Amino acid sequence: MIDALIKKIIKLQNPTCVGLDTDFNYLPEDMKSGVSSFAEAADRIFEFNRNIIDSVSDIVPSVKVQIAYYEMYGYQGLKTFARTVKYARKKGLIVIADCKRNDIGSTASCYSKAYLGKTPIGGRQLQAFPADMLTVNGYLGSDGIKPFIDDIKNNGKSIFVLVKTSNPSSGELQNLKLDDGLFIYEKMGRLVEEWGCDTIGDYGYSEVGAVVGATHPEEAARLRLQMPHSFFLIPGYGAQGGSAEMLKVCFDNRGLGGVVNSSRGILCAYKKPEYANMTYYEAARAASLDMRKDLSDAIGKMGR
Amino acid sequence: MIDALIKKIIKLQNPTCVGLDTDFNYLPEDMKSGVSSFAEAADRIFEFNRNIIDSVSDIVPSVKVQIAYYEMYGYQGLKTFARTVKYARKKGLIVIADCKRNDIGSTASCYSKAYLGKTPIGGRQLQAFPADMLTVNGYLGSDGIKPFIDDIKNNGKSIFVLVKTSNPSSGELQNLKLDDGLFIYEKMGRLVEEWGCDTIGDYGYSEVGAVVGATHPEEAARLRLQMPHSFFLIPGYGAQGGSAEMLKVCFDNRGLGGVVNSSRGILCAYKKPEYANMTYYEAARAASLDMRKDLSDAIGKMGR
Repeated sequence: MIDALIKKIIKLQNPTCVGLDTDFNYLPEDMKSGVSSFAEAADRIFEFNRNIIDSVSDIVPSVKVQIAYYEMYGYQGLKTFARTVKYARKKGLIVIADCKRNDIGSTASCYSKAYLGKTPIGGRQLQAFPADMLTVNGYLGSDGIKPFIDDIKNNGKSIFVLVKTSNPSSGELQNLKLDDGLFIYEKMGRLVEEWGCDTIGDYGYSEVGAVVGATHPEEAARLRLQMPHSFFLIPGYGAQGGSAEMLKVCFDNRGLGGVVNSSRGILCAYKKPEYANMTYYEAARAASLDMRKDLSDAIGKMGR
Repeated sequence: MIDALIKKIIKLQNPTCVGLDTDFNYLPEDMKSGVSSFAEAADRIFEFNRNIIDSVSDIVPSVKVQIAYYEMYGYQGLKTFARTVKYARKKGLIVIADCKRNDIGSTASCYSKAYLGKTPIGGRQLQAFPADMLTVNGYLGSDGIKPFIDDIKNNGKSIFVLVKTSNPSSGELQNLKLDDGLFIYEKMGRLVEEWGCDTIGDYGYSEVGAVVGATHPEEAARLRLQMPHSFFLIPGYGAQGGSAEMLKVCFDNRGLGGVVNSSRGILCAYKKPEYANMTYYEAARAASLDMRKDLSDAIGKMGR
């Protein structure tokens, strides 16, 4: 799946994903009006997502659907999560389920079935939330990652493991130094390289990628050198303070190596003065085009 | 909420929780018969859970509901998760949602709303999956934990942070040594003590507990000494190889300090020769009583 993402990035000259972190409060007033239950809120969120997807699917390669924003609307929210994942794939987008799942092996295999595989019931094989890619947390080590790797290989999927996250306090644990001189995030990076080593595709990147925040350019630059086979999912652009100049260190000399997420910057673009007089989905498209230009100016031609 | 759990443990002389990691395949053949959709499977799983809860609610203080086993049945599975959480609380059990959630602050606050708080919609405050306690992963540091702490304080809840997990490869990251001589799991333990320091209850334990596996007694003993204010959620007993003798180091000299989970050992007890000729819920009760005796023999009187 990583090759498919890279091909789309090259074709569209756009290394971004639109983050569908759709808080009900982000919706325009008229869409929120009269809503007082999870089921109604979840329906409106799907409508919002569908219009955003329709508006950007020809200019961006991928979307990232952050499941926390759906869990807070109960199982009805998760129904909208599933509908959003399926609709985005139908429109040709590569869908990253941002779930940061983690557990012991037997439990991790349930998560993997839910997002990357299939669940057997009475002789049938059913798909719960059929995404293309999933974010996971590696704190439990290899046996918590192995079930995902199996589904990657069997079903043509990818994962991104948290390495250096975009939030201000990520360094409290991730930037501690080990007795061999490595930082914890570097050690996690090495584990990621190992986990992906036999899934390397046509562009030299494996199906086991890394989450590396745009907000920490020094660490990102180190990791790009130490993780030559790991594609980066890069959050933190825009609302969180990361810029194209800061994150360009994540890219290799072919202009490849990462996909950059923006959520609020696109979903809530319609609230900004520069996109006044546009619908929310027109504003999302305009903001996506502006983001593409901003990233292209910093990174250069992708796939050169 | 930690005081309520400890009081129940003392009253019932039973420091256990029943792990409702209910794989559809664990159900007896007659309950599985004719099922071929997520909705049907989810309904049968709820029926199974309800009978287990009815059968053990007077002898165990708590249940732990592992959400991965529900996510693999789609949003219908999560409807059963919500129903199970609510039913168990109605029956007086303290409910631990085992979700190991983790993200940056703004996203963590969505997770916290989903499990420990409320979600605002159109002037109403709705509860998605109203648990008493939640497991979380601390890899992102303080700002990913803070939203949970806020809901703990506002709503009388608790969390358990992953410190030393029960799986065989937990040491790959957790047992690396830092340049100051601490192991990573010890450093995480210190963060947990800090995060909980102003939520300490009547028994000296805080609302921010730690997940510490029964399968690693040496690490557990160190952590008990280093984390005097942290209550432990102890997985790994039974099917994973942890014994009462191994995990008794998690308890203090009052016979308090932890709650021990067993999942398959109780849910699937009816498949074992020693519980033959019992229904699955009778076998679950018998296995829970056997587990209580086993733990009591090792730990001694609780609340002495």
